[in-house]
Amino acid sequence: MARWQPDAPGRLAAAALDLFEENGYENTTVIQIAERAGLTKSTFFRYFPDKREVLFGGGTVAGLLVEGIASAAPAAGPLDAVADALEALGRTFFTADRREFSGRRQAVLNAHTELREREALKRIDLTASMCEALSRRGVPGLTAHVAARLGALAWEIAFDRWIDADNSEGFGPLARQALTEVRAAAAVC
Amino acid sequence: MARWQPDAPGRLAAAALDLFEENGYENTTVIQIAERAGLTKSTFFRYFPDKREVLFGGGTVAGLLVEGIASAAPAAGPLDAVADALEALGRTFFTADRREFSGRRQAVLNAHTELREREALKRIDLTASMCEALSRRGVPGLTAHVAARLGALAWEIAFDRWIDADNSEGFGPLARQALTEVRAAAAVC
Repeated sequence: MARWQPDAPGRLAAAALDLFEENGYENTTVIQIAERAGLTKSTFFRYFPDKREVLFGGGTVAGLLVEGIASAAPAAGPLDAVADALEALGRTFFTADRREFSGRRQAVLNAHTELREREALKRIDLTASMCEALSRRGVPGLTAHVAARLGALAWEIAFDRWIDADNSEGFGPLARQALTEVRAAAAVC
Repeated sequence: MARWQPDAPGRLAAAALDLFEENGYENTTVIQIAERAGLTKSTFFRYFPDKREVLFGGGTVAGLLVEGIASAAPAAGPLDAVADALEALGRTFFTADRREFSGRRQAVLNAHTELREREALKRIDLTASMCEALSRRGVPGLTAHVAARLGALAWEIAFDRWIDADNSEGFGPLARQALTEVRAAAAVC
């Protein structure tokens, strides 16, 4: 039995990213990823169903978003609740120490259609999570859908700015700024 | 050499949908699809790179959207141009004779993660096409992004209503109605 490893999925993701960059996504095997991380193949499959999933670790993000929306002030409007959720993401997930990894990861995703597809579906699922969390706050159906879509767009804009090496701002403030810009743009559509 | 066939991709898609419904997506082979359509395997691969692609025929939709946005009245706002594009789609693609097929196709997509992933990426690409077409009309960057996202949401809402058997309205009017609702919802986010 493999001994207990702290943050095995994180180590597997880091090892995978290194190998994808060095040898290409197609040329990297699950066994190589596990070896590089100092783990076994069976440990890999305890966390991920296949190679394609290794850069999409867990449901942490969905949980943070849902919690952030639920805990927004009762009087907060839909997009304000989304802003709170994205700030929560910035405090505990898109932290400064993950910035370099996040940028490298995104470059690998962008370069492979099958990873882009997986990411596209994850985004739809995350947007649906935000929409449901807004509905539970009493936001009417269509308004919740629109706010979740606008929130997802602001997230993408903020993320692109955040991983930009010339930018030193945190994800949270960038997300709040992007949401303000998105709201203004929506008003002139 | 196979003899010339009218609308081979359409016949392959129809045959594939029948077989996916009868035997399941996983249990259907490209050879079976080609046979059912009265075509050869090599004809299949002339139109589609793999089985997964057979229900995503061609770039027709992107072209219709781009053309619809480009030919909107010069004074039309971003969402009005998108409404014109969705109406063009309703006139030439989501026509009454394709309604039943579209509903069955969507049910098969929804039931398979790998088809949902493919569809998710196609939607991103179509949204990007709308965004670029709006930019070419002089719509500022972020406004074009927001209008394209809201247009994609209205499209999805209209599509769900259109394939509903209890609904006899055309896709175009449904899309215009959905856009009006989405615009109103955006104003209260």
